[in-house]
Amino acid sequence: MTVIQNAGLDSRQVRVGLDVGGTKIDAVAVSEAGEILGRLRRPTGWGEDAVVTSIVDAVTSLADEVGYPMGDVRSVGVGIPGLVDAETGRVLHAVNLGVESLDLAARAQDVIGVPFRVENDVKAAALGAAVLSGAAGSMAYLNLGTGVAAGIVIDGTIWRGSRGTAGEVGHISVDPNGRLCGCGQRGCIETFCGGGALARAWGRPGALPILDIFEAADEGDLQASALRADLFHGAAAAVRILVLSADVETVIIGGGITALGASLENGIRAALLADADTSPFMRSLQLDARIELLPVGSPAAAFGAAVVGASASEKEIVAHG
Amino acid sequence: MTVIQNAGLDSRQVRVGLDVGGTKIDAVAVSEAGEILGRLRRPTGWGEDAVVTSIVDAVTSLADEVGYPMGDVRSVGVGIPGLVDAETGRVLHAVNLGVESLDLAARAQDVIGVPFRVENDVKAAALGAAVLSGAAGSMAYLNLGTGVAAGIVIDGTIWRGSRGTAGEVGHISVDPNGRLCGCGQRGCIETFCGGGALARAWGRPGALPILDIFEAADEGDLQASALRADLFHGAAAAVRILVLSADVETVIIGGGITALGASLENGIRAALLADADTSPFMRSLQLDARIELLPVGSPAAAFGAAVVGASASEKEIVAHG
Repeated sequence: MTVIQNAGLDSRQVRVGLDVGGTKIDAVAVSEAGEILGRLRRPTGWGEDAVVTSIVDAVTSLADEVGYPMGDVRSVGVGIPGLVDAETGRVLHAVNLGVESLDLAARAQDVIGVPFRVENDVKAAALGAAVLSGAAGSMAYLNLGTGVAAGIVIDGTIWRGSRGTAGEVGHISVDPNGRLCGCGQRGCIETFCGGGALARAWGRPGALPILDIFEAADEGDLQASALRADLFHGAAAAVRILVLSADVETVIIGGGITALGASLENGIRAALLADADTSPFMRSLQLDARIELLPVGSPAAAFGAAVVGASASEKEIVAHG
Repeated sequence: MTVIQNAGLDSRQVRVGLDVGGTKIDAVAVSEAGEILGRLRRPTGWGEDAVVTSIVDAVTSLADEVGYPMGDVRSVGVGIPGLVDAETGRVLHAVNLGVESLDLAARAQDVIGVPFRVENDVKAAALGAAVLSGAAGSMAYLNLGTGVAAGIVIDGTIWRGSRGTAGEVGHISVDPNGRLCGCGQRGCIETFCGGGALARAWGRPGALPILDIFEAADEGDLQASALRADLFHGAAAAVRILVLSADVETVIIGGGITALGASLENGIRAALLADADTSPFMRSLQLDARIELLPVGSPAAAFGAAVVGASASEKEIVAHG
């Protein structure tokens, strides 16, 4: 691949953002004004080399499809699961991608010749959701996928915390007698509202177990009804914890499970209201009015990655004078 | 009272800090260099007028005792329980002081003629504990008193959050089948490790119920042993939540219950280690090494109030040109 150097074309600069999921990469090209110029999806490769190749492929395909030269790309930001060292762009333990340890930023930058920045996928999505929703002040993005985690954004900046566990609400136990979690604790929020834990608890075959649970619950299946209630309860607990610890103004809920749409949103809201019914303190927090679902198909995660990439390359400009 | 105007005496400026508790006021005089010049305790009055009077008395008595003229006092900061509007210095619902609504900053400032700033007592104590411990980055101060709440300090600044509920971990439920909390929910952290809830659950007469519980547990009383385990479990849950949501580096534990000293600290640490035993994820957080007890008799709360007052008066200098 040839990297075309067009340093003079400031007016045509592009920020690329990639959300790298277990099966597909969602890629967006964003203008300096924050407009989404184009978007595409590509399958994610399995294993370290294939992940790098599929990321590079997504970046170049996006340029081809939207119709700008690669030289217009000022930065690439990548949101990816696993333990991410945002400073070095290194990814560890991204088990869904077959990645044990990958120097992603360095390797992709070598091929494409553009500054790469890597961020944990939930943190990147949180930033994207904050910017796209216009949330001022503080917000949390609660990701209900196979696992459960949140990202916190304060005044337009990802809240990193001390050791990278900010927003890890999925592994807070809210029931000492609850189901055993993969992390070794009992009753973690993830055992209530994580897609993986719910599918295991459901235990029946099917490609879309959470959808199956909801349908069976509608038909009166008791196990399904209990699991659906667990999902609402767990998500409500995560919302309460995010407000009662970090005191974010809004919690935006995204992730695969939000494909359930209104029935999920109404269920979580009902769980928050049921709690407010018995507790004047909880009522005063008005939590039911402080949640919203990320629209299905929202580009928030990839857009957030583009913002991460843009802020990093600005930092480099400052750092290098 | 005469307010002596000694505007030229920059080298003898004093910042006063008051921690107003249900029974006593702890007052410190702090030099501009952050040195504690003197300290005294005065009884707290009951009701709005008496609270103002006892605060004014503490400020003037402290000047007499330490031996500086009132004109040397640049600012007074007050940490007080209840709902505090830090901007206006108004206090609401400080039930332990008989205060329903009190314009504390305005009323005290009228009498003393020095800028007053008011802050919630736990938040002020958090700031004081952060400064006195030299904690860099992020820390939480977990107050185990009659109730349970935490304050979070990031880079030397109190983390306020969106609506004033940052650090309100006492009312996060960690057991759906737990004891009923005064707030209306079940199994709140406060029902496990709040002095009020533990004393109610114990239900036996005695001036120092938590000490009684510990002594009875040592003698093999089963109810006392269970309540003591609850206390350790609840405090450990609060620590976990503070790290897994806000990701603070350190949790400093203070409040009346910490009079129990090493037996409390060892118990909380053991609860954190027991959890780490079953969960590699929790083990990786090394929570047992990230807690410390505020020393008994620490002036952290009053000192933090002095810091609050000092930062406010600096802001006023900037604001008024």
